[in-house]
Amino acid sequence: MLNKKLLNPKSIVVVGASNNIKTPGGRVLKNLLDHNFKGKLFAVNPKETEVQGLKCYQNITDIPNVDVAIIAIAAKFTLETVKVLTQQKNTKGFIIFSAGFSEKDAEGAKLEQQIVDEINLVNGTLLGPNNIGLINQNYAGVFTTPIPKLDKNGVDFISGSGATAVFIMEAAMTTGLTFSSVYSVGNSAQIGVEEVLEHFDETFDKTSSSKIKLLYIESIENPQKLLKHATSLIKKGCKIAAIKAGSSSAGSRAASSHTGALANSDVAVDALFKKAGIVRCYGRNELITVASIFTLPQLKGKNIAIITHAGGPAVMLTDALSKNGLSVPEIKGKESEELLSKLYLGSSVSNPIDFLATGTAEQLETIIDYCENKFDKIDAMAVIFGSPGLFEVYDVYDVIHKKMKTCKKPIFPILPSVINVKNEIDYFISKGNINFPDEVLFGNALAKTMLDKKVTSIEKLNLTTNNQLIRNIIDISENGYLQPQQVRELLIAAEIPLVNEIVCNTKTECISAIDLLQFPVVMKVVGPIHKSDVGGIILNISSKDALVISFDTIMKIGGATSVLLQPMKKGTELFIGAKKEGDFGHLVLCGLGGIYIEVLKDIQTALTPISKNEAIEMIQNLKSYKIIQGIRNQEGINENEFAEIITKISNLVTIAPEIVELDLNPLFGNSKEIFAVDARIRIEKN
Amino acid sequence: MLNKKLLNPKSIVVVGASNNIKTPGGRVLKNLLDHNFKGKLFAVNPKETEVQGLKCYQNITDIPNVDVAIIAIAAKFTLETVKVLTQQKNTKGFIIFSAGFSEKDAEGAKLEQQIVDEINLVNGTLLGPNNIGLINQNYAGVFTTPIPKLDKNGVDFISGSGATAVFIMEAAMTTGLTFSSVYSVGNSAQIGVEEVLEHFDETFDKTSSSKIKLLYIESIENPQKLLKHATSLIKKGCKIAAIKAGSSSAGSRAASSHTGALANSDVAVDALFKKAGIVRCYGRNELITVASIFTLPQLKGKNIAIITHAGGPAVMLTDALSKNGLSVPEIKGKESEELLSKLYLGSSVSNPIDFLATGTAEQLETIIDYCENKFDKIDAMAVIFGSPGLFEVYDVYDVIHKKMKTCKKPIFPILPSVINVKNEIDYFISKGNINFPDEVLFGNALAKTMLDKKVTSIEKLNLTTNNQLIRNIIDISENGYLQPQQVRELLIAAEIPLVNEIVCNTKTECISAIDLLQFPVVMKVVGPIHKSDVGGIILNISSKDALVISFDTIMKIGGATSVLLQPMKKGTELFIGAKKEGDFGHLVLCGLGGIYIEVLKDIQTALTPISKNEAIEMIQNLKSYKIIQGIRNQEGINENEFAEIITKISNLVTIAPEIVELDLNPLFGNSKEIFAVDARIRIEKN
Repeated sequence: MLNKKLLNPKSIVVVGASNNIKTPGGRVLKNLLDHNFKGKLFAVNPKETEVQGLKCYQNITDIPNVDVAIIAIAAKFTLETVKVLTQQKNTKGFIIFSAGFSEKDAEGAKLEQQIVDEINLVNGTLLGPNNIGLINQNYAGVFTTPIPKLDKNGVDFISGSGATAVFIMEAAMTTGLTFSSVYSVGNSAQIGVEEVLEHFDETFDKTSSSKIKLLYIESIENPQKLLKHATSLIKKGCKIAAIKAGSSSAGSRAASSHTGALANSDVAVDALFKKAGIVRCYGRNELITVASIFTLPQLKGKNIAIITHAGGPAVMLTDALSKNGLSVPEIKGKESEELLSKLYLGSSVSNPIDFLATGTAEQLETIIDYCENKFDKIDAMAVIFGSPGLFEVYDVYDVIHKKMKTCKKPIFPILPSVINVKNEIDYFISKGNINFPDEVLFGNALAKTMLDKKVTSIEKLNLTTNNQLIRNIIDISENGYLQPQQVRELLIAAEIPLVNEIVCNTKTECISAIDLLQFPVVMKVVGPIHKSDVGGIILNISSKDALVISFDTIMKIGGATSVLLQPMKKGTELFIGAKKEGDFGHLVLCGLGGIYIEVLKDIQTALTPISKNEAIEMIQNLKSYKIIQGIRNQEGINENEFAEIITKISNLVTIAPEIVELDLNPLFGNSKEIFAVDARIRIEKN
Repeated sequence: MLNKKLLNPKSIVVVGASNNIKTPGGRVLKNLLDHNFKGKLFAVNPKETEVQGLKCYQNITDIPNVDVAIIAIAAKFTLETVKVLTQQKNTKGFIIFSAGFSEKDAEGAKLEQQIVDEINLVNGTLLGPNNIGLINQNYAGVFTTPIPKLDKNGVDFISGSGATAVFIMEAAMTTGLTFSSVYSVGNSAQIGVEEVLEHFDETFDKTSSSKIKLLYIESIENPQKLLKHATSLIKKGCKIAAIKAGSSSAGSRAASSHTGALANSDVAVDALFKKAGIVRCYGRNELITVASIFTLPQLKGKNIAIITHAGGPAVMLTDALSKNGLSVPEIKGKESEELLSKLYLGSSVSNPIDFLATGTAEQLETIIDYCENKFDKIDAMAVIFGSPGLFEVYDVYDVIHKKMKTCKKPIFPILPSVINVKNEIDYFISKGNINFPDEVLFGNALAKTMLDKKVTSIEKLNLTTNNQLIRNIIDISENGYLQPQQVRELLIAAEIPLVNEIVCNTKTECISAIDLLQFPVVMKVVGPIHKSDVGGIILNISSKDALVISFDTIMKIGGATSVLLQPMKKGTELFIGAKKEGDFGHLVLCGLGGIYIEVLKDIQTALTPISKNEAIEMIQNLKSYKIIQGIRNQEGINENEFAEIITKISNLVTIAPEIVELDLNPLFGNSKEIFAVDARIRIEKN
C-alpha cells in the first residue's frame, strides 16, 4: 500500500539534511527546494542550525508532526529515527536512502525488518532502503540529478536499480520523453516493483493517470502479482514496457550479486510478459524508444509511409520495418501522381516519399495531408528531416509539430541532425514532442510494440474434468515419478487421449493381449525411467515369435519389472510438457517431437492457465508449424485437438499443482486424432 | 584512380563561390577557409568581385592553373566549366556538388558521361556529381557541416549518400569517433565506393594509413572489385564495417528509387561481406559503435570483465554479451579475494566487479591493474561509470584514460551519464577517447565484431578435374535445362559421386537393368523437370511385376520420354545448390534436404570460389548440424565428403560460369559416402 501522504505530503522532513549538496542529504533538500514542493520542509542535522536557508533541528524529537521523512543518515541510526517518527510525529511515508541493510549482511537484513515492522504498525509506507527515492508531480524526493520534466502524460517509471533509473532519465531527457513519476524501490523491504504496480492499478483513473508504465526489474519477487496488475492495467488502456535484467545465466549471477535475490528462469519471464502484454526490452535506449512510441497515437495497421528529404535513412528504416513484419507499401495511383506534381522535379512518392534535400515545409505539409486523408492504406507516417547545415529548419519542425497535434494517424519524427540543428530539435522537444534520433532503433522498437498482441483474458477454468478424481490420485501419491498405472489414471482423469496399452508380466499375458491390440505392436520396458536409453522400446512387433523374443530381451534389462504393449500407432511425433517454475506457476511447452526438440529447440511456451486461443497461438508460432498444417503430400496434424490437449494439461497442473514435471513424449498425431504414447509425471508435495 | 592532386591539392577553385553561406558554394568556401587548407584558394562567380574576403573571378578562364575544382553551379553550365579547367588550367581533381545528372533523367546521364569523358582525357578524377564532397586531413571540401575532428587514426569513411554521411558524422562526433577522411561519391559517375576502396588498398601504408574503413552503400556496382580490395585491406590489418542499405525487398525499392541503381540480392551481399571479413551493420548507431570498437586494441578472447559502480547496466551488459556468444566469467581465487579486500565493504569481484556507488578512482585503478595483470582468463574490460550527480568524476575518467593508453587488454569505457557529467565526458572525449553511452548497443556491437572471423584466403582452384571435358560439354550445350545424360556427364567430369543409373525405354530394358542395379530400385520419369510434382518417382520397387507396372504408370505421365532406374539408396537427404547472382558470381547453398530446406529454411550460403575450410564452416553453421554429426543412435553424415562435394560444385561453376542454376537434390548421405541421386542444371550463354 502506497499511502496518500507519501505521494502528496503536506510536510517533509529531511533527516541528515546538509549544506553540502554533494551529499545525499544536501542534494535531496536542494531538489525539494528547487522543484516546486508546495508544503512545509524541515531539516534535521545535529551539527547545524541552518541548512540551505532553512532552520535546522538538532534532534528529530524537536520537529512538529510531519507526513513524510526522507532519511539520509547511517543505517545504524535509522531505526531509532523511524520509531520517533512513527510513534511521536504521525509520519506515514518513509524514504530511506541509507545503505547497509539486507543488501549487506544478515544483521542488516534484521535491522531492515525491524524498520518495516515499525512502519507497518502505523500503516506507513516505506520506499527503500538503499534507493534514490521518489519523484512525482508533487515533489522531487531524490538525491540525484537530473530531475526530468514532469507531467501527467509522462511515463510512470518503477526501477529496481537507482543508478539505472538515473541513466534512463538522462537518456530520456535528450529525446524529450517526460515522466509522471519515478519510483526507486531499492531493497524493496516493504514496497517492491509489484507493489507500486498494484498501486497504479488500484488507483488508476482514466483521465488523470498516466497510461504508460516502464519497469526496470532485476528480480521478480511475486510473479503472480506482477501478472495480475500488469494485465489489469493493460486492460484499462495502459501500455507497459519492461527490462528484466539478468536474462542470461551469467546475467543472473550479476543480478543476484547485486540484489541478493534469486534469479528466476528467463523463459518464465518471457511467458509472463507475453501473457500480460508487457513489451520486453533489453537496454535503456530500447526502453526509451518503446516508451516514446507509446506516447503517440496507437498504430492501427502495418503500413508505414516514410516521408524524407534524404534517401539513406529512409532506406535503412524501410529495411528495419520490413525485416520486422511491418510494411512500407508502394503508393501509386491518381492521387499519388497529383501529390508528385506538387513537389520538386526528381521527388518520388512511391514510398519512401522523398521530397529531396531542397524540399520545403509547405511541401511536407502537403505530403502529410495526403498521407492522412488520401492514402487509405497508410496507417502511420515516419518523417525524417535532418539538415546538412546550410539553413535553419524551424519551419519544418513547426509543421511536424502542428500535424502531430491534429492528425489521427501517428506521426513519428526522426530528426537525425543532433549537431547541425540542435537548437531546432531542442525547440521541437520543448513544445512537448519526442525525437527518434536513429531510424533503425526506432524501426526495430516500433515493430516490437506491434508484437504487443491482444491481452489474453485469463479465462475461467473449464473444470468439468474429473477434478475430484485427479485430486484423489495426487493425494495418495508419493513424491517422485508416478508409476505407469498412476500416470495413466491421471491422464485419463484429465481427458488426455491415450494409446491403448496392456501391462504384461508373462509371455502368455503378452499373447492374450494381442487379441485386444492387434499386430503390429510396440513393447516397452516397465521400471526404468529413460526407456529408450536402455534399449527398452521395441517397435513394430508383428508376430507371436517376435513377441516372445522381444519379451525375453526386454526383461533382461536392469530394473525391468514387466512389459507394456501398445498398438503401433502412425503419425507425426508431438511433444507437450509442463514444468513448475517457482512462483511463476507452471510453464507448458509444446512442439513437434524428436529432432525438433532435441536439435532445433523448436518449442513454444506459455504460463498456465492457458486458454484455447493461447494454445492455438503457441502451435502457430512453432517454426515447424507448416508440418502441422501438412506440407506437400504429407498429412498434417489436427491442430484443434493439439490445442485442446495443451489446455487440458494446463488444467491438470492447475488442479494438481504438486506436479512439478510432466512430459507427454511422444504423442502421435495425424489429421484426425492425437494420442499420447508415453508420459512421465513427477510430483512434489511440500 | 584517385589522383594525388585531388587528395592533396596546392590550389583549389570554388566555382559558384558565394558570400551567402547558406548556399553550397558559400558554405564550401567557408569550410575551406575555416579548416586549415594550406594552399591557394580561388573563387569564381560572375556576379561578385570579392567573396568571403577573397578576390572573386567573374570567369573561370581568368583564374591561374589550379589542381582541384569544386563546382557548385547549375548542371547545365558544368560541362563548359570542366572543359576550360581540363584543357586550359591543368586541373586534375573535380568535385561536382550540382544535381540534375543521371539521377534525374536520360539527358542528365548523357551530360554526366560527357563530363566524365572530358576528365578522363586528362587522367583527372571526379567525385560526384550530386555529392557533398570530400574531407581529408588536407582540406574540407564539403558544403555541409559539421566538419568532424580529423586525424590519421580516425576512420576512412566512404558514403553512397551525402545526407547519410552528414548524419553519421554528427552521431560520431557525440561519442568521440574521429575521421581520417570522408568521401561522398554521389552518382559515382567515375569514382564509386569500390574505386575509393581500391585507392585505399593500393596506397595503403602501414604507418600512415588509417586501419579502419566504414562504408555506407546503397548499391554494389562491382562486387568483385569490392571483394578484392576489402579482402586485401583486411589482410593488411584493416577492419571494415559497412551498411548495405536496401536489404529488404521494400528497402531495395527505396534504394533503387534513390540511386537509380539496380538492387542486388541481399544473400549475395551477406556472402560477399562474410568472405571478405566485412562486419555488416544495419543502422548509423551500430556502425559508429562497431567503428569505435575498431579503434581500440583487438579483443583476443571471449572473456570480458565488467567493472562498474552501478549494478543495473552491468547486468544488462552481461545479458547482451552472454546472449551473443561472449562470456563474463566468474572470477575467483586468492587474487580476487586480495582485490576484494582493497575495496569497500559490500563490493563484489566475482564479475561483474561492482565497487559500489561510493567507489573511488584509486579503487578503479587497482581493479584495472588486477584485470590487466593478475586475472589471466580476462581478455578485456568494460568500465561502466556514470554519476548520480553528486560530485564530479574527472579523476575517474583520468584513470580510465591513463589505463587505456597503457593496458594491453582493451578497455571499453561506458559512460552513461550524458547529462550529469556531460562536462567530464566531453573532457574525456577531448583527450582522444571514445564513449559508448549505451551498454547494450555496445555489447551487441562487440559481439558482432567477434564474428569477424579469419579472412578466408581465396585459394587457388584445384583444377585437376576434367576441366576440358567440362568445357566441351558446356560448349556444345544449348541454353536451358540440360538433358539427364548431359547432367550426368557433367557431374562425372566434376567428380561428383552419383548413384548408379540406367535409362530405359522399354520394359525389357528395365528388366535387364536389374542385373546391374539389383532390387530394390527407384524408377523416375525422364522428360518432366519437376518429377515428384507429377508423380514421376516410384520408390522401393522390389519385384519384376512391380517394375513392369511402374513402367506403365510412369510412361503415362505427360512429357515422359523414358524412365530412369537407380538402386534404392539409404541415408539422410542432403541438398547442394548453386545460383548465379549477377556480378557477384555464383552462390553455393547447402543443407539437409526435405523439410529442412522447405520448412525450416536451414541453409548456408557462400560465394564461389569456396575452399574446403569454408565448406566445412558452412556445414557446421547449419542449425541441423547435430544431425550431420549423428544424434542418438542415428548415423551421421560424412562431413568431409559433404564439404568436398561443395568445393567440387564451386569448381564446376567456376569452370563453367554459364551454369546459372544447379541443384543436387537430393543427395543421400551416411557416415561413409554421399551420392547425388537427382540433379538439375540450367545454363545460359550470353
